[in-house]
Amino acid sequence: MPQGISDRIRAVMRPSAAALEPYDPAFSQVRINLSANENTYGMPPEVKAAVDRGLCDAVTNRYPQPLSNELRSELARWHGVGEDHVIVGNGGDELLFNLFLAFGGRDHVLVSCEPTFSVYRLYAELVETTVVDVPRNPDTFECDADALAEAASRASIVVVTSPNNPTGNLFPIEQTRRLCEACPGIVLLDEAYMEFAPDGSSAEPLLAEYDNLAVLHTLSKAFCLAGGRIGYVLASPSVVNALAAVRQPYSVNVFSQAAGLAAVKNRKTFGPTIASIASERDRLLDELATMEDLGVTVWPSAANFLLVRMPDAHVVRNRLRDEFSILVRDFSSAPGLRDCLRITVGMPDENDALLDALRQLLKGE
Amino acid sequence: MPQGISDRIRAVMRPSAAALEPYDPAFSQVRINLSANENTYGMPPEVKAAVDRGLCDAVTNRYPQPLSNELRSELARWHGVGEDHVIVGNGGDELLFNLFLAFGGRDHVLVSCEPTFSVYRLYAELVETTVVDVPRNPDTFECDADALAEAASRASIVVVTSPNNPTGNLFPIEQTRRLCEACPGIVLLDEAYMEFAPDGSSAEPLLAEYDNLAVLHTLSKAFCLAGGRIGYVLASPSVVNALAAVRQPYSVNVFSQAAGLAAVKNRKTFGPTIASIASERDRLLDELATMEDLGVTVWPSAANFLLVRMPDAHVVRNRLRDEFSILVRDFSSAPGLRDCLRITVGMPDENDALLDALRQLLKGE
Repeated sequence: MPQGISDRIRAVMRPSAAALEPYDPAFSQVRINLSANENTYGMPPEVKAAVDRGLCDAVTNRYPQPLSNELRSELARWHGVGEDHVIVGNGGDELLFNLFLAFGGRDHVLVSCEPTFSVYRLYAELVETTVVDVPRNPDTFECDADALAEAASRASIVVVTSPNNPTGNLFPIEQTRRLCEACPGIVLLDEAYMEFAPDGSSAEPLLAEYDNLAVLHTLSKAFCLAGGRIGYVLASPSVVNALAAVRQPYSVNVFSQAAGLAAVKNRKTFGPTIASIASERDRLLDELATMEDLGVTVWPSAANFLLVRMPDAHVVRNRLRDEFSILVRDFSSAPGLRDCLRITVGMPDENDALLDALRQLLKGE
Repeated sequence: MPQGISDRIRAVMRPSAAALEPYDPAFSQVRINLSANENTYGMPPEVKAAVDRGLCDAVTNRYPQPLSNELRSELARWHGVGEDHVIVGNGGDELLFNLFLAFGGRDHVLVSCEPTFSVYRLYAELVETTVVDVPRNPDTFECDADALAEAASRASIVVVTSPNNPTGNLFPIEQTRRLCEACPGIVLLDEAYMEFAPDGSSAEPLLAEYDNLAVLHTLSKAFCLAGGRIGYVLASPSVVNALAAVRQPYSVNVFSQAAGLAAVKNRKTFGPTIASIASERDRLLDELATMEDLGVTVWPSAANFLLVRMPDAHVVRNRLRDEFSILVRDFSSAPGLRDCLRITVGMPDENDALLDALRQLLKGE
């Protein structure tokens, strides 16, 4: 329930708003922030220079282009689709919310596979959508393909995250195909972390076949623009137009459009840091796997983070923050994620610092 | 009804989304754009330099501060309220939408006074709020104070625009007081254009007395940041927290926060152009009033635009665009605004060009 609201004001709120549990990432100021799956390398200098030029050239006193024309064109070129298959949003968040505004609501059903990104449920419930959870396998976090296809057959919206946040699993393309066949509504693949996965993992090739498939991307992760708030959906023109109809027409400001355009035009420049993050992820996985005797379980991941289970995870998380100024994300009390932390893959020295700190804490030194 | 959506996809949309009439400002590329109530003077150079510095210093790879801390503090200082009385949004649009998400919905009632900004009704209906219109006087566009207070007594939300868009009327402070007393829900005064009105016109002094009053401001108009999408609400902490609870936590990106902070810190620098716009508005009003013999009616305005009625307004609007490359906003088929155009006050040469073109067209030269 949201806090700091008097009884009088709460009494006039919509019930689904008054019942909300607002999203709280619990940030703190720290030396090493590995809590939000950001790209901690920062923008490559040549891209930053292009972004800065774009920002300073942006016209501030006129309303932005509603559909981010130039950025949309560049995204369409990149992904090899027509412009009418692309819609840009104020971060992936806006596009997710618009999905529920367009296709959710009372008497509509969201199917998702928890544990997963909590915002789907939050936005679904805010517009009174019924949420049906098809739980992931508690040990491997794989989706249950049969149960999911069965639930999808009665869904207005199916959301599957691939790679999944916070567990790191990829969702197989053939299962996406099965969902698109089964679901009378929209199947959204949230591919916010797909740039860190092996080539060929994306559901994008299916867009040509299914008009009810939508693929969500973001520039917040691989492309160092979490601060810029730029997400986009690839889908059929019908789905794009439905999302466009419910959006606030000027939701993407001129600065974000300019910064996003510069980043996307220079997308190849991010290659080395993305490769380095994937390689650091695998190193971190190997190192954490050696801590099994300290009670550590770690799951493989196709994203820029790892899910790790350890004894007294909540205490470890707080001590990492307070004694080492390292912030990781606490999922230890989330359903299905008992004693789990999510650790963003940082730069090598950040990862080393994390490993050292974890070893010290777990050995009780 | 939104266009370009197949029957199959439309069939799975929420009914209120499928029934939507999306907001369409009908922009065209023109030489002189007086259609969107922007500040056509553009940012003063010294402010632009400060904005550019803020933009280039913004950290792109980390998520933005959810509540725009520095901008919020500066706004609180400016308006002489505590920070917990301020919430910043992705333009006024986001804050309006959040108002309906928090306090609207099924079995909830919006009261507004049409003709007014069409987005209130749009957002209200999108979340299934019942809309009760207390129509303005068809000749003066003044609100009907008694009918409004009576309707407010059964409202979840009352929105009054002051100065009103597109008619220019101010709403008297004592009537705002009456609404706050009468309404069990939230009374929002949309003061997007208040910077162009005489001192002492704002409802802000009442904020100290009423915990159900909210005042909406924007940097889009007077402060040359339509492209930056920065709006804010001043209200009691309860209302601020209710709006915060339903918002997307990272809706205001780092660039807009930085640009907004630079503009607000330098707010006094906008004084001369704001004064010039108000003075040009009064000149334009006088000039248009001399065209009475050509069938022109013009209403006084406290904003940066004028509402003008003239014969065949729709044709005049298109000819202004096509023959003179001047764009104004067409309200000629909106309820209560037969044959009306809304003309944004521009720079003196823009206003002169508009007056010359209008005279030519109306004289049939």
